[in-house]
Amino acid sequence: MALNLRLPVNLRIPGLGRKAPLMPTPPGAVPGTLVAPPEALPPRITVMAFGPEEFRETEVASVAEVQRHVGSAPVVWVNVDGLGDTNTVQALGEMFQIHPLALEDVFNIRHRPKLEEYDDQLFIMTRMASLGERFEHEQLSMFIGLGYVLTLQERPGDCLQPVRARLREKRGHLRHRGVDYLAYAILDAVVDSYFPVLEEYSERLEALQEEILTHPASDTIARVQAARHDLLALRRSVWPQREFLSALAREETPLITERTQLYLRDAYDHAVRIVDLLDTYREIANGLSDLYLSSVSNRMNDVMKVLTIIATIFIPLTFMAGIYGMNFAHMPELQWKLGYPVLLVIMLLLGVGLLALFRRKGWFGSR
Amino acid sequence: MALNLRLPVNLRIPGLGRKAPLMPTPPGAVPGTLVAPPEALPPRITVMAFGPEEFRETEVASVAEVQRHVGSAPVVWVNVDGLGDTNTVQALGEMFQIHPLALEDVFNIRHRPKLEEYDDQLFIMTRMASLGERFEHEQLSMFIGLGYVLTLQERPGDCLQPVRARLREKRGHLRHRGVDYLAYAILDAVVDSYFPVLEEYSERLEALQEEILTHPASDTIARVQAARHDLLALRRSVWPQREFLSALAREETPLITERTQLYLRDAYDHAVRIVDLLDTYREIANGLSDLYLSSVSNRMNDVMKVLTIIATIFIPLTFMAGIYGMNFAHMPELQWKLGYPVLLVIMLLLGVGLLALFRRKGWFGSR
Amino acid sequence: MALNLRLPVNLRIPGLGRKAPLMPTPPGAVPGTLVAPPEALPPRITVMAFGPEEFRETEVASVAEVQRHVGSAPVVWVNVDGLGDTNTVQALGEMFQIHPLALEDVFNIRHRPKLEEYDDQLFIMTRMASLGERFEHEQLSMFIGLGYVLTLQERPGDCLQPVRARLREKRGHLRHRGVDYLAYAILDAVVDSYFPVLEEYSERLEALQEEILTHPASDTIARVQAARHDLLALRRSVWPQREFLSALAREETPLITERTQLYLRDAYDHAVRIVDLLDTYREIANGLSDLYLSSVSNRMNDVMKVLTIIATIFIPLTFMAGIYGMNFAHMPELQWKLGYPVLLVIMLLLGVGLLALFRRKGWFGSR
Amino acid sequence: MALNLRLPVNLRIPGLGRKAPLMPTPPGAVPGTLVAPPEALPPRITVMAFGPEEFRETEVASVAEVQRHVGSAPVVWVNVDGLGDTNTVQALGEMFQIHPLALEDVFNIRHRPKLEEYDDQLFIMTRMASLGERFEHEQLSMFIGLGYVLTLQERPGDCLQPVRARLREKRGHLRHRGVDYLAYAILDAVVDSYFPVLEEYSERLEALQEEILTHPASDTIARVQAARHDLLALRRSVWPQREFLSALAREETPLITERTQLYLRDAYDHAVRIVDLLDTYREIANGLSDLYLSSVSNRMNDVMKVLTIIATIFIPLTFMAGIYGMNFAHMPELQWKLGYPVLLVIMLLLGVGLLALFRRKGWFGSR
Amino acid sequence: MALNLRLPVNLRIPGLGRKAPLMPTPPGAVPGTLVAPPEALPPRITVMAFGPEEFRETEVASVAEVQRHVGSAPVVWVNVDGLGDTNTVQALGEMFQIHPLALEDVFNIRHRPKLEEYDDQLFIMTRMASLGERFEHEQLSMFIGLGYVLTLQERPGDCLQPVRARLREKRGHLRHRGVDYLAYAILDAVVDSYFPVLEEYSERLEALQEEILTHPASDTIARVQAARHDLLALRRSVWPQREFLSALAREETPLITERTQLYLRDAYDHAVRIVDLLDTYREIANGLSDLYLSSVSNRMNDVMKVLTIIATIFIPLTFMAGIYGMNFAHMPELQWKLGYPVLLVIMLLLGVGLLALFRRKGWFGSR
Repeated sequence: MALNLRLPVNLRIPGLGRKAPLMPTPPGAVPGTLVAPPEALPPRITVMAFGPEEFRETEVASVAEVQRHVGSAPVVWVNVDGLGDTNTVQALGEMFQIHPLALEDVFNIRHRPKLEEYDDQLFIMTRMASLGERFEHEQLSMFIGLGYVLTLQERPGDCLQPVRARLREKRGHLRHRGVDYLAYAILDAVVDSYFPVLEEYSERLEALQEEILTHPASDTIARVQAARHDLLALRRSVWPQREFLSALAREETPLITERTQLYLRDAYDHAVRIVDLLDTYREIANGLSDLYLSSVSNRMNDVMKVLTIIATIFIPLTFMAGIYGMNFAHMPELQWKLGYPVLLVIMLLLGVGLLALFRRKGWFGSR
Repeated sequence: MALNLRLPVNLRIPGLGRKAPLMPTPPGAVPGTLVAPPEALPPRITVMAFGPEEFRETEVASVAEVQRHVGSAPVVWVNVDGLGDTNTVQALGEMFQIHPLALEDVFNIRHRPKLEEYDDQLFIMTRMASLGERFEHEQLSMFIGLGYVLTLQERPGDCLQPVRARLREKRGHLRHRGVDYLAYAILDAVVDSYFPVLEEYSERLEALQEEILTHPASDTIARVQAARHDLLALRRSVWPQREFLSALAREETPLITERTQLYLRDAYDHAVRIVDLLDTYREIANGLSDLYLSSVSNRMNDVMKVLTIIATIFIPLTFMAGIYGMNFAHMPELQWKLGYPVLLVIMLLLGVGLLALFRRKGWFGSR
Repeated sequence: MALNLRLPVNLRIPGLGRKAPLMPTPPGAVPGTLVAPPEALPPRITVMAFGPEEFRETEVASVAEVQRHVGSAPVVWVNVDGLGDTNTVQALGEMFQIHPLALEDVFNIRHRPKLEEYDDQLFIMTRMASLGERFEHEQLSMFIGLGYVLTLQERPGDCLQPVRARLREKRGHLRHRGVDYLAYAILDAVVDSYFPVLEEYSERLEALQEEILTHPASDTIARVQAARHDLLALRRSVWPQREFLSALAREETPLITERTQLYLRDAYDHAVRIVDLLDTYREIANGLSDLYLSSVSNRMNDVMKVLTIIATIFIPLTFMAGIYGMNFAHMPELQWKLGYPVLLVIMLLLGVGLLALFRRKGWFGSR
Repeated sequence: MALNLRLPVNLRIPGLGRKAPLMPTPPGAVPGTLVAPPEALPPRITVMAFGPEEFRETEVASVAEVQRHVGSAPVVWVNVDGLGDTNTVQALGEMFQIHPLALEDVFNIRHRPKLEEYDDQLFIMTRMASLGERFEHEQLSMFIGLGYVLTLQERPGDCLQPVRARLREKRGHLRHRGVDYLAYAILDAVVDSYFPVLEEYSERLEALQEEILTHPASDTIARVQAARHDLLALRRSVWPQREFLSALAREETPLITERTQLYLRDAYDHAVRIVDLLDTYREIANGLSDLYLSSVSNRMNDVMKVLTIIATIFIPLTFMAGIYGMNFAHMPELQWKLGYPVLLVIMLLLGVGLLALFRRKGWFGSR
Repeated sequence: MALNLRLPVNLRIPGLGRKAPLMPTPPGAVPGTLVAPPEALPPRITVMAFGPEEFRETEVASVAEVQRHVGSAPVVWVNVDGLGDTNTVQALGEMFQIHPLALEDVFNIRHRPKLEEYDDQLFIMTRMASLGERFEHEQLSMFIGLGYVLTLQERPGDCLQPVRARLREKRGHLRHRGVDYLAYAILDAVVDSYFPVLEEYSERLEALQEEILTHPASDTIARVQAARHDLLALRRSVWPQREFLSALAREETPLITERTQLYLRDAYDHAVRIVDLLDTYREIANGLSDLYLSSVSNRMNDVMKVLTIIATIFIPLTFMAGIYGMNFAHMPELQWKLGYPVLLVIMLLLGVGLLALFRRKGWFGSR
């Protein structure tokens, strides 16, 4: 019956992990200082250059090599996996004329998704979701300019494989359109990466509900809380994406064509849908706390009833036995021939009568 | 007294069912990819062509046949039941020049209601409500263009029969007005399909309240939660309809006349009313949780009182009997002639006295 | 101690009554279809025609007769009590050129208060409050046009008697001003009809608070909930009135003069005040739920303490008596001359000692 | 242990007192009807006429006398204490050309603070706070026109003495500026009157928190609720002041100079600060309810533990004593020489063992 | 088991301390009156004058000396530590032509952060955070004019050391830019001072969660409340900073260049991030209250189960022993040779049977 809980790994409060500090740079550092996050991997740079009729995919070794590809095809997508080397990123920043503060943000891997417009460049910071024991974030920084899209992420492996496949296999319009459509395809893949996570959480909520109704454990409520925190973290991740997708789909910018805006409106619809689902799930998760408390109350009520039934039946009977266990010299009943069996019958009747009373009060079975 | 609950069917969290995936297309698919939802029925196409003086209703076998009807009368209403065949819908999409993304949305049967304006077409996605064991949604996609209304839905059977009847029987103004009035009539029927569902839920809430006050069961609170989730899902379904009805009734669009906008304002009023009622019902459902908890507390209090009364009366009496059951050689009372009856009278007085005390404390009856 | 509650009449959830359906017309009916609500009374038409120097008040038998009065004096107020005859209302609607949808709304006696502007007519739908066992609503539809005000209500008896009295007795400016001032006087009387209802509810809340603190009954919390639902229903009734009064007081309409707008601003202030009070009362009612729960907890605590005190004192004593009730052949104490009185003294000291301990723990009196 | 609570005076729900009716005039009265609140005092009129070089302070007996002072100095401040005589106020209203509705509001002593702009007059209704057993409101109506400020309040004694002192003693710029600066000085004093009340409530909250943690009484939670209601009433009182101070500080009005607007911005800052503090205090007061519930739960837990420890130790021991109290003819242990002492030792070991078990479960001390 | 809590120091409600009064000046004081806060330190004035090529840092003794430095270099930063001498600040105010009300605000050390624009001066009031036993605020007032930045704070020691270091060591662009960039650097350092505080609170929340799940103490919930109050106070401190940073980054002011606005946008991003984190932490802290209540309920349930198991097993057994302790003359079982051992076996079986029943009910182990 003892509570011997160890805080399981999945009770970690999201966003409270010690993996990355809340701020990458020490307070008061010179603005624009680049500090690689702890345990960051060395960068791996891939370039995809393509147009309606051409397609080249290369892994490059240096930033100088990137330079040779840019401009060589209508659209060039430079992707960097791993933020472990600030020099490489610095060089890329200089090459694409990126503002130092935007570059600093790239390394701040717990940044809020956002859109920033520069004169001839759009800077989008977004977050991909994936599923581990709990859901996981990975930050994706994207710079969109004339003829190029530059994406930077923390580690290899992302939700963009389908986009790459469509490019390689020449499926859809991807090769025929400009950088804005490529940016849309990437953002769409990022938004859609939340759907499998949501499916998973909807299943967890159903499992938690069933557990609460049938066999609540003492850590159930902690797991409900963990789910609530995750849903909250997901919402904080999607909400700003919804915001900037709305801006991209509606506002005029020279880098985004009207035709692509129709597609961005679709991605925006998906983000709205995800926020809606998250709000529903959060309300459901909140309801589970109530369900748990009422379930615990019901169980305590059941325990109390068992105790009360037993005690209420036997305490008076024990008292009666105590009476005839007294040693008074003058207790006539004790000498009666039928004293003992008569008393036993009386006791039996009393016990049965009390049981019947409790049954009428509805203390059994039906509850 | 044991809790042997099986999760009943109606405890399913709405929107968490496994029937349709949260996203119809795999993440990262080419935008505009059409994927029929699982278990979709084969399409059945009906055409209603009418004007003030004419009326034809035909079930057609192919999209080519639809083509022959369009333009043959002032208004043509093409209705598709069943989304099982993407080719048919694709062909219709080409015929009516529908944007590929809108077409993709048609198959996404868990989409949020919305309005999209294209150059010479309005695309409205809405949801009809009906009652099964719990309430059920069916998605209705509607395209409004010059001279035609195209509606697509998941399965046969809908809330539009009264509109069809009015067309067939030439009741009201329906045959005399244009596509915008037909669209209004359809949207109005969709909004009004929520009223019977609301009536049902108001009765369920009353029944739940009575159950909580008179004989709460251990799954009552779970059913309250289920009602809350349903009301939330209904609200999420009606709210966007309210939004686009407001837009249709107020904003200028070439496809909607001012005369019809007055009618749309009325449909908007109905949607507002439904949202209001849903908010009231949700607040009532929230209150039922409190009512349940206080009801459980009261019952536990009653159980405790029974135990306390019995124990408090008999424990001291049993102690007294125990005293005279001791075997001390020198206990003068044991030899007294009247020892036994005097003790019985004392015990009786003590028991009655305690009962009187509890009555004065208000532990009986009043509750 | 048994809970044998019947659901009392006043636990009905407001707005959930079966009196009027949520929708007056069957779903999908032709828009503008007039359906009298169930149990509606036959209409009784009264005309008040007046100007600075004239005043006529007549009960008329037919709509044709109404026609003769309109235009015969600067202001004509036509009032209809009872919505039982759709033909009469239809005829009035034609006479005053009322839009069919507005006419349909008149019969929808559970409509949300609203303001609609037509070209030369204002349509205001509002709700009067009165007190029965709980508060009661009555819908008032008002059409304001050039030279006339038409009001329609469900049944005779309303909050407008003071307005009629001022007209008859020529008090105030009512006879000297136009239709807009008459409309203001009516709306002001409607808003003010909420104040006595609020007074009543403030008294009920105080009575409930006192009941909870001194003698909570098991249906107290249900009555708190009922009050909460009523307050919510009142708020939903007043809030839209506040909205349209604000619009009438601020926006320019040809039918309302600026001088009357100053008065409407005052009526708006009253509506704001009512909403403020309702919000305060709702917060108080919410607090009563907490108060009830803590009161129940305190009482259970008291019951537990009684049980614990009695049990904790007598269980050890009974054990001691049990010891000397054993039949061991060799128990030297039993033969001691003073064994029995010494044991009694020890028991007394133990009992008193435990009582003193509980007193020091603060288990008596102070609570 | 009995709960014998009388509803103490300070549990009165604020705004629910019977002192003043919610509406001063009967429903449906002619707008502009003046009705003195019950128990209103007779008016006392004081005039302060001043300019940079002059200062006269007189108590006047009639409104006609007031007339003589107005215009005799750059700024004239007419103050009325006591609203018991509607004729006097009516005469003042005519003299200063006050709108009848504004005059009616003056007597509605439970009105919401507000600002109304007339052509050449500002009408400000505000509320001063002071401390009695709970906080107290007093309504202050202020009319600002060319050359005069007219203030009306319910009773003598207010928070404006420092302003009067500054005028009399010629401190600050008050004598050198116009009516707008005088109005600012009054409004500033009114806003600042809330700070001592807030100080008092912050102390009460701390005292309540300490009481809950150390010796919660059964009316503690009711006093927490009372504090919450008071804080809510304070907020409802300050919030509209914040609103109109913002309007006065920002909007252009001919009666307020830009220089004074800078000062009004400061008064606005104070009002914002008060609202902030009130929100913090309300959140703290809400937290106290949780704290109380958990405190009660902890105490019930403690009581249960005492009962369980005693019962769990002695019930098995009593059973063992009962065994050897049986009268079977053949119970060999009873004849053993050491039977009795051995049994006593076994009992002692069992009791000590159980105590040790409970200690290991952490049922002692640490909590 | 007794609750002997003393209110620990860290349960102090934040903002309720008695250190500084809610209002620095007595109510009704002349606006612009300067009153030093209690226990204020004497001022220490430091001047840093610098440009791209020059840098001087001096501690000055008098305001007159400050005058000599202003204008001597492109940017002059005057910093005042300690608000104990109103004359010094008054003199500085005259020198920099500061509005008297702004000067009064400097001494109001519990003011809300804000931005005020004067003709050729910006006045920013902000708050630095640091960590003691709980977090601590220190107010920083900043005046920005042509060629100077004047900062005033309560005591020496602040979060601006890194800014000073960058100036001294000529790191970053600080020496090359104007007053607006210096102001940005200061504001950025202030905002960043919240991150270490947030880290600390995230750790405290995790520790509290672990404590609740493993060994909740009776003051745990009070410490959760304290954390909630702190988080609320932090939010109230950061929110207005977020507001004015947004205004500075977006609105046009002559004193801030567009280049610096890009940097301010970055500081704004940080403030948004902090507010986001605070909201997450507050939701987590709220969840801890639920977790605590359910933890207490579970423990009470465990205690109840122990009691019920013991009582339910031994009460019937004790009754059976009582039966055979009765002194009836005719009880045949007592004479049976095997009566005693048979009864013992029956008792054993009954006890084991009840234990098995409870195990099947899941009262052991699993929880």
